[in-house]
Amino acid sequence: MLEPFYCPASVAIIGASRDENKLGHAVLKNLLECGYEGQVYPINPKAEEILGQRAYPSVLAVAGDIDLTVIVVPDRFVAAVLEECGQKGVKGVIVITAGFREMGGEGIKKENELLEIIRRYNMRMLGPNCLGVIDTICPLNATFARGMPRRGDIAMMSQSGALLIAILDWALGEEVGFSRFVSLGNKADIDETDLLQLWDEDPYSKVIVAYLEGITDGAQFMEIAQQVTRDTPIIAIKAGTSDAGARAVSSHTGTLAGSERAYDAAFKQAGVTRADSVEELFDYAHAFAQAPPLKGDSIAVVSNAGGAAIMATDALDRAQLRLASLERETIELLQTRLPPGSSALNPVDVRGDADEERYRFALDTVLRDENVDGVIAILIPQAVTKVAETANVIADVVQGHDKPVLPCFMGQHTTQVGIEILRDRKIPNYHYPERAVNAMRAMVGRWRWLERPPREIEKFDVRRDQVEGALAQVRADGRLTVGDAEARQIMEAYGITIPQAQLAHDPDEAVEIAQRIGYPVVMKIASPDILHKTDIGGVKLNLMGDSDVRDTFDLLMYRASRYMPEADIWGALVQRMVPQGKEVIIGINRDPQFGPLLLLGLGGIYVEVLKDVSFRIAPITRWEAEEMITELRSYPLLRGLRGEKPSDLEAIADCMLRVSQLAVDFPEIVELDVNPLIVHEEGKGAVAIDMRLVLA
Amino acid sequence: MLEPFYCPASVAIIGASRDENKLGHAVLKNLLECGYEGQVYPINPKAEEILGQRAYPSVLAVAGDIDLTVIVVPDRFVAAVLEECGQKGVKGVIVITAGFREMGGEGIKKENELLEIIRRYNMRMLGPNCLGVIDTICPLNATFARGMPRRGDIAMMSQSGALLIAILDWALGEEVGFSRFVSLGNKADIDETDLLQLWDEDPYSKVIVAYLEGITDGAQFMEIAQQVTRDTPIIAIKAGTSDAGARAVSSHTGTLAGSERAYDAAFKQAGVTRADSVEELFDYAHAFAQAPPLKGDSIAVVSNAGGAAIMATDALDRAQLRLASLERETIELLQTRLPPGSSALNPVDVRGDADEERYRFALDTVLRDENVDGVIAILIPQAVTKVAETANVIADVVQGHDKPVLPCFMGQHTTQVGIEILRDRKIPNYHYPERAVNAMRAMVGRWRWLERPPREIEKFDVRRDQVEGALAQVRADGRLTVGDAEARQIMEAYGITIPQAQLAHDPDEAVEIAQRIGYPVVMKIASPDILHKTDIGGVKLNLMGDSDVRDTFDLLMYRASRYMPEADIWGALVQRMVPQGKEVIIGINRDPQFGPLLLLGLGGIYVEVLKDVSFRIAPITRWEAEEMITELRSYPLLRGLRGEKPSDLEAIADCMLRVSQLAVDFPEIVELDVNPLIVHEEGKGAVAIDMRLVLA
Repeated sequence: MLEPFYCPASVAIIGASRDENKLGHAVLKNLLECGYEGQVYPINPKAEEILGQRAYPSVLAVAGDIDLTVIVVPDRFVAAVLEECGQKGVKGVIVITAGFREMGGEGIKKENELLEIIRRYNMRMLGPNCLGVIDTICPLNATFARGMPRRGDIAMMSQSGALLIAILDWALGEEVGFSRFVSLGNKADIDETDLLQLWDEDPYSKVIVAYLEGITDGAQFMEIAQQVTRDTPIIAIKAGTSDAGARAVSSHTGTLAGSERAYDAAFKQAGVTRADSVEELFDYAHAFAQAPPLKGDSIAVVSNAGGAAIMATDALDRAQLRLASLERETIELLQTRLPPGSSALNPVDVRGDADEERYRFALDTVLRDENVDGVIAILIPQAVTKVAETANVIADVVQGHDKPVLPCFMGQHTTQVGIEILRDRKIPNYHYPERAVNAMRAMVGRWRWLERPPREIEKFDVRRDQVEGALAQVRADGRLTVGDAEARQIMEAYGITIPQAQLAHDPDEAVEIAQRIGYPVVMKIASPDILHKTDIGGVKLNLMGDSDVRDTFDLLMYRASRYMPEADIWGALVQRMVPQGKEVIIGINRDPQFGPLLLLGLGGIYVEVLKDVSFRIAPITRWEAEEMITELRSYPLLRGLRGEKPSDLEAIADCMLRVSQLAVDFPEIVELDVNPLIVHEEGKGAVAIDMRLVLA
Repeated sequence: MLEPFYCPASVAIIGASRDENKLGHAVLKNLLECGYEGQVYPINPKAEEILGQRAYPSVLAVAGDIDLTVIVVPDRFVAAVLEECGQKGVKGVIVITAGFREMGGEGIKKENELLEIIRRYNMRMLGPNCLGVIDTICPLNATFARGMPRRGDIAMMSQSGALLIAILDWALGEEVGFSRFVSLGNKADIDETDLLQLWDEDPYSKVIVAYLEGITDGAQFMEIAQQVTRDTPIIAIKAGTSDAGARAVSSHTGTLAGSERAYDAAFKQAGVTRADSVEELFDYAHAFAQAPPLKGDSIAVVSNAGGAAIMATDALDRAQLRLASLERETIELLQTRLPPGSSALNPVDVRGDADEERYRFALDTVLRDENVDGVIAILIPQAVTKVAETANVIADVVQGHDKPVLPCFMGQHTTQVGIEILRDRKIPNYHYPERAVNAMRAMVGRWRWLERPPREIEKFDVRRDQVEGALAQVRADGRLTVGDAEARQIMEAYGITIPQAQLAHDPDEAVEIAQRIGYPVVMKIASPDILHKTDIGGVKLNLMGDSDVRDTFDLLMYRASRYMPEADIWGALVQRMVPQGKEVIIGINRDPQFGPLLLLGLGGIYVEVLKDVSFRIAPITRWEAEEMITELRSYPLLRGLRGEKPSDLEAIADCMLRVSQLAVDFPEIVELDVNPLIVHEEGKGAVAIDMRLVLA
């Protein structure tokens, strides 16, 4: 479907201009100068010829086929020329013109009009409000940006055209190469997921980088991204993560920004590496594109200066990577040839007077060590340092191993020559040890992601009909929240363990139920209208005998009528008193872009004060449920402190998976909290005491 | 005392060499080529003349005075030539030669020998094992490094010579300027604190940056640094913060690295801005040296591109800075002149087609807003952007205001011209919004530090003699830990509230005491040898009557004799049962470089599992005690959750200050824990239940 954007045989520029200050001139000029070998048709009713090319009044006046058109006419003409493109049989259009959805109001209508036209003619559209497309492989430059990047391995997409310009300007200075370079604009038709699919198969793109302000279809993005990233790493900046940033996003491109936590979870689950800045984006991209994959988290440092080695070690520690423990043989071998004052322990210090041969020996020896998964190779240009020679030696050694080596040639004036040698030999340099370490950490993250089991979603055997019945009842009553009895019905249907309980309509019935269940019992007001029962004294614990139960029934009825006179009261729920255990909260919130966002936390202050929670997008796998449990800061409490038995983690994961399935099966559930889930010790299960559920 | 290092009238190079591969050649060459105007004396017994200068066999053969000598002879000759320097009356020496303390063993002895010589002759020494000194003001280059940096505002010191070389190499490429550039080497004599004092008075140095692997005298450093940094900001990298990094430090320069937490606390208290990388070091240094001080934490963003503005906003959020709320008048004024599609709200987006005048108007308007304390000014080189003109306009606007503006010209190829204009007009540029935001955050940190009240240490009226008595008793017994009774005596002497209690020697006495104190009571085994009483069931709570007390006395005696048969048992302590409250731990640990490190945390899992603690170096001020309390993640628990009354924070601070004073008064106390301190609600005080104390 997106073929016309790859090496089209012919391109028309609608709105090509003779005026050098017009974008329509810049686009045509770029196209003519980039080395593009296909047919170029400038379209301009008022010109005979532009930049030496014959101009046509409209696409319909062109005799041959047109694969791709670039539209740069003022916004009020876009629909009309698009219609002509359709008539002409054009397959792909790039709409550079702005003034659509990003302006709100009338602009949204106008954008929908464009969509209607392209669908009618079965065309694909990039934009509107975009910078265009650069393809260094074809080559093709259909943008108004100044300059064309060199050919490289990185495919880049961006929702901000201006940011692409900045990156292009930087890439020209630093000679960074790209394969594809696409401005997404308003994403009316083609979006990030389309490009991911396209680039997955692209032999020229080794890594995909993206600047995104929002994602069109969260679930589809996750689905595609996790497939693509197995072969082609995806690194993305998600901008607008702060509340203020999100406001800026919506005023700027009209994207509804998903919540920060949902993005974070989705990227984690889909194996998308997240970058917080353009600097990180390319630091990671170069490592992924040019170094062999990392297969562990034990890192060694080789350096010709102690201070820099220490800084790298500190950074490894901050990044929670492991400083590799070298094998005894490695250390002994290093000691045989390194002079006094060196260090044969990791970080390995070859001393300031090391020549390229000593560096080669040390780096090669360390790389041969089975305990070493990757190396940060630091060079400071000291009195006798041979920068160029050492750069070549590093490149030679790197070729002989399949482990990543990230060099860090510090300085600039003297080291530039070495950095250029490395670049020409396809090895990225990092100016500071901290940046090399950060890139290594990104590689560790990718390795861990690739190591996890395939994402298989378990399906429990549940009673959907029972939930449908309960929800139908809620809707029939014109309510949005469920009552206790319905909540119990729903949990039961999805196999979530709940305490034995029954609704009592009068004191005698309550006593009868309590006797059957066995003392002690708990009693709660049963009402769909009272969400926070404890606030009005509507829950009584640890009732030990018949008279307690009888008194409590009356007390609860009195309190309900007194504090919530409007509420519909069904009676009192009599429930087995669950033995003490750890309290856990499992919740669902619906994110506008990714759907059901699942939360896990320990009850009480852990969630409320310490904000110690973890999130994933449902449906989750069992592996992800376990990961959520262990990433809680308070996880040691669940694992058991000082001789205490561990809690039943399997029961927690089980409940999470069932809640996940429930949320996926019933999209009308917008909020859901199992709170608390009382977790007993290992093997003894967990019991859901209460559930709150809100419908759309 | 350090005058000879500032513009000496004459310099001798001992070990000057004709051999271009020798350091002694490089140093002489640098000195001759740097523009130094004083007398230069090459010292070399085997040469008549070096690099066109007459050479002398020894300093004693020179007729005139010598202010400063640079020593580059092999290590075995250093002591002898140093002796000659002393005889000659030289005031300052730089020992570049390595092979001393950093080699351990014999090297330490040799370094002590040098120290003995310079003390005898009242000389000052930099090094040994250093790169030398560069002074761009004099000018003077007494190093073997390649190249001389341009003159600038930054004074730099480094404990790693190699790192200085890397920084110099980078500075030559980026045209970064320095005033002074000093390699500390082994710091046998002159150390970081000496240089701080020297540079404090230096009119040419606006900011001091340091790379440190250790600090010679922690207390003195804190004392001097906090004075210096009021006028001259100090920014420092402390390397070797990780365990592995610290190991590397000690093998590399022989410094005993203080614990990470102690450094962090000391820097915070002394107002030293901490950097984690060389990149941060200079990002901060340029902001401090060149921009006016920040006086608030409300930041505005002005940008000609929405995407970059969002990234800046996200970074501000991550850095916990405030996005300024513009005044209504500012917004209205911006709206009058910004075209459709701009944003007059912060972040202010002037649109991609902004010329320099529109940029000037927006930046100036935003700076006039009283709600704005500082601005990040972003420029992306878009189609019509005038980079040079906008750079000049920004510089003009900046001069008209006393608020910091940190520009972020993104890109490189096209923006370089603007970046250079900014540099020439003394305005630092940041390549990425995140780096500008980080520098802004450092400025906010400095502003907050300068805003705090002067560091006054309260002195409580205490009974030192009573503590001396208790400690003498402990020592007399040949113990290192105190018993319960002594602990009570010590806390009482320092005004720390303890529960009413008395030692009982038999069951009858226990009952009598309990009756006098009033029920309920607590009973504990009293023994100096049993530190963890609860572990053997040696503590019984909530005893309600005489027979309980009688039974418990016997039970405790039985358990002590059974589980700790070797322990010296004094009896049982009968103590008032303290009402429930929040449990807090206040502790002291002795750091080898900074002395008493004070810890605060909430008891139980908060300290043990969540590691939620804060640290400062004692003595602390009341302000610092309060800061420690509020920086706990669990602070909301102390402030009171949902209608709960706040805890008595003043009582916590009071206890912290008294413990601080105790630790300072008695350096022989190496460890001390008040655990738990039971804190009651506001106004109702706090009671220390137990104290553990270990002597050196």
